[in-house]
Amino acid sequence: MSSSGPLRVGMVGYAFMGAAHSHAWRTASRFFDLPLVPELTALAGRNAVAARTAADRMGWSSVETDWRRLIERDDIDLIDICTPGDTHAQIAIAALEAGKHVLCEKPLANSVPEAEAMTAAAERAAADGVMAMCGFTYRRTPALALFKQMIANGEVGTIRQVRAQYLQDWLSDENAPLTWRMDKEKAGSGALGDIGAHIIDASQFVTGQQITGVSALMETFVARRPLGGDLVGLGGRGQVGEDVPSGPVTVDDAAVFTARFDGGPIGVFEATRFALGRRNALRLEVNGSLGSIAFDFEDMNTLQYYDGTNEPGRQGFRRILVTEPEHPYVSHWWPAGHGLGYEHGFTHQVVDLVTAIGSGEQPTPSFADALGVQRVLAAVEASAGNNSTWQFVDG
Amino acid sequence: MSSSGPLRVGMVGYAFMGAAHSHAWRTASRFFDLPLVPELTALAGRNAVAARTAADRMGWSSVETDWRRLIERDDIDLIDICTPGDTHAQIAIAALEAGKHVLCEKPLANSVPEAEAMTAAAERAAADGVMAMCGFTYRRTPALALFKQMIANGEVGTIRQVRAQYLQDWLSDENAPLTWRMDKEKAGSGALGDIGAHIIDASQFVTGQQITGVSALMETFVARRPLGGDLVGLGGRGQVGEDVPSGPVTVDDAAVFTARFDGGPIGVFEATRFALGRRNALRLEVNGSLGSIAFDFEDMNTLQYYDGTNEPGRQGFRRILVTEPEHPYVSHWWPAGHGLGYEHGFTHQVVDLVTAIGSGEQPTPSFADALGVQRVLAAVEASAGNNSTWQFVDG
Amino acid sequence: MSSSGPLRVGMVGYAFMGAAHSHAWRTASRFFDLPLVPELTALAGRNAVAARTAADRMGWSSVETDWRRLIERDDIDLIDICTPGDTHAQIAIAALEAGKHVLCEKPLANSVPEAEAMTAAAERAAADGVMAMCGFTYRRTPALALFKQMIANGEVGTIRQVRAQYLQDWLSDENAPLTWRMDKEKAGSGALGDIGAHIIDASQFVTGQQITGVSALMETFVARRPLGGDLVGLGGRGQVGEDVPSGPVTVDDAAVFTARFDGGPIGVFEATRFALGRRNALRLEVNGSLGSIAFDFEDMNTLQYYDGTNEPGRQGFRRILVTEPEHPYVSHWWPAGHGLGYEHGFTHQVVDLVTAIGSGEQPTPSFADALGVQRVLAAVEASAGNNSTWQFVDG
Amino acid sequence: MSSSGPLRVGMVGYAFMGAAHSHAWRTASRFFDLPLVPELTALAGRNAVAARTAADRMGWSSVETDWRRLIERDDIDLIDICTPGDTHAQIAIAALEAGKHVLCEKPLANSVPEAEAMTAAAERAAADGVMAMCGFTYRRTPALALFKQMIANGEVGTIRQVRAQYLQDWLSDENAPLTWRMDKEKAGSGALGDIGAHIIDASQFVTGQQITGVSALMETFVARRPLGGDLVGLGGRGQVGEDVPSGPVTVDDAAVFTARFDGGPIGVFEATRFALGRRNALRLEVNGSLGSIAFDFEDMNTLQYYDGTNEPGRQGFRRILVTEPEHPYVSHWWPAGHGLGYEHGFTHQVVDLVTAIGSGEQPTPSFADALGVQRVLAAVEASAGNNSTWQFVDG
Repeated sequence: MSSSGPLRVGMVGYAFMGAAHSHAWRTASRFFDLPLVPELTALAGRNAVAARTAADRMGWSSVETDWRRLIERDDIDLIDICTPGDTHAQIAIAALEAGKHVLCEKPLANSVPEAEAMTAAAERAAADGVMAMCGFTYRRTPALALFKQMIANGEVGTIRQVRAQYLQDWLSDENAPLTWRMDKEKAGSGALGDIGAHIIDASQFVTGQQITGVSALMETFVARRPLGGDLVGLGGRGQVGEDVPSGPVTVDDAAVFTARFDGGPIGVFEATRFALGRRNALRLEVNGSLGSIAFDFEDMNTLQYYDGTNEPGRQGFRRILVTEPEHPYVSHWWPAGHGLGYEHGFTHQVVDLVTAIGSGEQPTPSFADALGVQRVLAAVEASAGNNSTWQFVDG
Repeated sequence: MSSSGPLRVGMVGYAFMGAAHSHAWRTASRFFDLPLVPELTALAGRNAVAARTAADRMGWSSVETDWRRLIERDDIDLIDICTPGDTHAQIAIAALEAGKHVLCEKPLANSVPEAEAMTAAAERAAADGVMAMCGFTYRRTPALALFKQMIANGEVGTIRQVRAQYLQDWLSDENAPLTWRMDKEKAGSGALGDIGAHIIDASQFVTGQQITGVSALMETFVARRPLGGDLVGLGGRGQVGEDVPSGPVTVDDAAVFTARFDGGPIGVFEATRFALGRRNALRLEVNGSLGSIAFDFEDMNTLQYYDGTNEPGRQGFRRILVTEPEHPYVSHWWPAGHGLGYEHGFTHQVVDLVTAIGSGEQPTPSFADALGVQRVLAAVEASAGNNSTWQFVDG
Repeated sequence: MSSSGPLRVGMVGYAFMGAAHSHAWRTASRFFDLPLVPELTALAGRNAVAARTAADRMGWSSVETDWRRLIERDDIDLIDICTPGDTHAQIAIAALEAGKHVLCEKPLANSVPEAEAMTAAAERAAADGVMAMCGFTYRRTPALALFKQMIANGEVGTIRQVRAQYLQDWLSDENAPLTWRMDKEKAGSGALGDIGAHIIDASQFVTGQQITGVSALMETFVARRPLGGDLVGLGGRGQVGEDVPSGPVTVDDAAVFTARFDGGPIGVFEATRFALGRRNALRLEVNGSLGSIAFDFEDMNTLQYYDGTNEPGRQGFRRILVTEPEHPYVSHWWPAGHGLGYEHGFTHQVVDLVTAIGSGEQPTPSFADALGVQRVLAAVEASAGNNSTWQFVDG
Repeated sequence: MSSSGPLRVGMVGYAFMGAAHSHAWRTASRFFDLPLVPELTALAGRNAVAARTAADRMGWSSVETDWRRLIERDDIDLIDICTPGDTHAQIAIAALEAGKHVLCEKPLANSVPEAEAMTAAAERAAADGVMAMCGFTYRRTPALALFKQMIANGEVGTIRQVRAQYLQDWLSDENAPLTWRMDKEKAGSGALGDIGAHIIDASQFVTGQQITGVSALMETFVARRPLGGDLVGLGGRGQVGEDVPSGPVTVDDAAVFTARFDGGPIGVFEATRFALGRRNALRLEVNGSLGSIAFDFEDMNTLQYYDGTNEPGRQGFRRILVTEPEHPYVSHWWPAGHGLGYEHGFTHQVVDLVTAIGSGEQPTPSFADALGVQRVLAAVEASAGNNSTWQFVDG
């Protein structure tokens, strides 16, 4: 594959996600053959000084203070949306209508109607060869990509059970400050949309199946938190005096639900920011008739695989170090046993997106795929609001 | 503590549980100081030859072919019930009314009314100093006993979340034969009552809290199974031809539910016999405001402890090898690092029971405690039968 | 297999090892079919009161205060030696000459000449059908027995490397008191003979190969320790004031050595009582041309197995839970996933010994096998005393 | 810290190490504040076409086919040496004499005399403010940097034992092809210099102590290998027919040794390319009087820490996820629980080197530090060639 030109990127937002995306845009073509070479053309942020500083640090050539201007520019081919969820629909639809490809962070939106509108815009744009993709980046962790491959190969047989957890603990401290992530207006929901969305997507991705219904319970353990937190950050350790003003937490701290998938398995899901000691434990286990596979992001370079066809007496969960040239994405990096990190998923996301754009094929997860996740999120909220009564996922 | 006489035991049933109980009755006074020395006086089983063989093998002095005869004997102080759940109520009530102490395997009964009748009988008997206890043996695993101690000491602070799984896989093979454990009449329920009962009890035991409500989903993955299995066994690997006659599975293969506890935490529970590769993974994790603790019976001599008060940068889950003299029960056994096994829980159960009888105090778990578990089991079944709608636990 | 009579046992010593052996003599016939049923006939100890108390607690029918009297008794078939190493030769040779079978704790003796005399006595006795065996009990841990089976089956191919550690930490506290285990006269050596002997035996057992030479380094980190320790115990946590009298440590705290085996592999060995945090980490790893196997006694119910013939991309160390009916000894115990403990090795030792006596075959490890270990210990000491210069193992 | 100008880099070699170094040069200033901003000015390689391709891929502005030309260029401030060990001395000395800073891959040289000459050149250059550093990159893995910090803080107390292993398996396949890494002329030694050097450096780095003597054993398991391997690669899985010509392996496949450190501890070291299943297990454990710490690069984002001052009954190895803002280097990357990868060590190496250059301080490890490692390597070879007799490390 040889490159036929640049892909000029404009990015909106430059906090945690912006740093990760910037690294990926800079790095992908250094390790992978891409049909188009990404260029970090412009970064948009409301605060001109801060945006300029970020652009210099992260390697962006120019700055805009209004994302609308970014979309108007002729020298931008793709809009990369790294803002909170309440702005996704507006930016993405405008970009797609302007003929720009879009990469949009997850969750796709803060509501199903927004996600539907975005999906409709993506489908219209696709007719003109304009692509849209949602950033469920964990799919690009080599171990999770291998997980999916193995299931698609039939290595676990008929799937019976799915066990998914996303355990974090950054709100366990009652004095951790209030940020936009605890504000329903900005974030849509709390643990559910932020990290629950990831395990919903991951479980549907690896199984190749859709969740058809749920029964859910949601809980907010700490109702008010001190103001003054870093509004863009992930919280942090609280150091708060008694007289600090506080504000209400309007989202869930934890969301748990049972589920059914369209191919037969049942599932158990848990997303929480209160699992003290679990920093970023995105865990997924699938039990099938022939084998089982388990993953934990806190040990992200490994996959646990139980091959039920092994001889009795020799069976056991096998710790595959997912750093072999045979594994997805890995041959472009280091020798076996030399682990990858969190940001590699973003680099692989760029690789897959640019490859799809180059070949004119729809990248995945599409907006329609992400809308599917959004509908599960909505069903979870509906069930939790109705005595946990079973709620079918609309579709 | 010095012994003041014998405790003459009559045991009903002599399969898997009978072997474990017999070992405990033989062994407890060899390693612990007991107020009464257990004697293996008589074993009851319907098949005289098989019972005789079992009695000789396991060290019982005599045999009866009718459990009623056991209760009539003057030289029996305690009846140990190791039969399937459908016979528990009848035997236990008769024994208590005859003034015999009772140790009854779990689940206490196959229904709430039976368990209520048993509890009433136990309470009447207690007035005369006759004791009754239910065999939730896992409580006596040193790691789980330590788990409870640490929570009682306040080492995890306010409990927010409970995560409980009991994962087995012995039915994952579709040809594993039908046994009484898959027959609703005999067993009451499937994974739910057999192993779900253990995690309900364990979670209530370690937290010191009661489950107040549940939302549940139950599933039977394999509807019919070949006849001809060992009727007392745990199944096994199927080797079945095409023409083997089959029978219906009338219980659940897996039961999952969300829950609330009376002290505030939410819980997620999963009991299954289909988690391929998980042989006996009784897992329990509690997250509190100050610390977290996690246990897995497949690594039964360890406890994972996260101390949230450790200095930042030095925090992490600590693998406590629960083999120190400071740990519950352990000082009576071997030096540090020399692990214990499954049957030690039964020996500790005898120790606690005999110690309670000797001191005239009520042993735990009492029949009332076990009735509490039974009511949770009933609520799970009720919710699963009603679209997972939230079901309060009656009590 | 049906039993044809009793095997009347006389045991010398009743401390830690005595308790473990007694449990095994009591328990073996309850779970295994034995050709002879062990009887706990007599226990010998110099202190009559203490011996009587121990005998009652552990289930021995009578007591002698002189081991010579035990050997004279006609109603004793087997002498079980659980004393410190300096008395092994004297007792074992007398017992064998009196026509008693002998089970002798490890290390066989405190010197090669003693071990040679014992081996000669054992060989003379064998001609009359009198058996002698040395108590390298760890061989009977199911995971280590499986380890040997797998190598014998060719599952690791040509062995290239052996990695053996026995890490303890009970002397890491400088105030841990002096006991006989730190006295060269009583114990022969320190970490080397006590726990180094176990990994030498285990490595030769699983590989089926003999160590031919070594280069060693030995170290005593703490030269003097407070007197007053429990003379039969394993030490413990020191609570010692400044004026407590102290005595010299005359043995090694740690012994490390490199080695060659007669089939080609090289080895690295480490025995220490100063590996803080490692309570009883008997670890063994073998790397071959086709596979690797690793074991750690702190996780004694598992074996780690790497099958190098697995498909690339699916390779990894597999955690075999050694609790399956296919595994050595296990089918006599509990269902899969229900772990065994430290003392089961002693029960299996009785099973193997009694089975060998019943069939008239030589049990292993024989005194000759144990003499082989003793020669390696001597070579280690010789090399350590000679600038680590390579020392061939005499044979 | 603000940048005061560029640091113009010329790199020699562009294989595995070249790719890792290039990524680091490109990335360091994106995440860290550096006093000088690295520029990828020129890459040198003998094959003009291949070097050009590599330079384009890796982001280097120009190409030279002779490293001497690189040194002559005025627009180069620093020479980065990524070639096999036989060329290090020549290039480094020339560069230093030309007033260029030098970063040289490890091991520093193929012999002690070469390393001495390089160190002398570095010391002469230092007088003029020209800096030289050796690339023992693993020091910059956050977990190993934390390891050192904790020991320096006194958290393990007096060090008694060091246990170091570097286990790989890429030569376990007898058909893995011959490369320069198995050629004594090019590589100096085999496992010893390639990976043994890393654990020697890491053990001296974290303990702050020097190895004073060793007793060693070295082994070549496979004497000849098929020609035709990728001459710059790490080998790979062999697919070789019977008639493929072969060549001799002139280096060690495995090197094991015992050691003493100048502060008292003893050590055990093992470097091997034949530990089947261990892909890149750089392992280091230190046991002290107050605590123990253990690391394994196959789980590179964690550190195992045993705090011996914890209350009895609560002690255990703690799995610190080294992804907290308090940990070395980490605050510049992602939130807690989002792991880093192999290449981050190289980025941190650039950060430390550029920071030292900017402040005019000597970076570590200096050439003198690396000469110390070289002397240990020489002592290992001398002992192995002399019946493992103890060999003091000259110095």
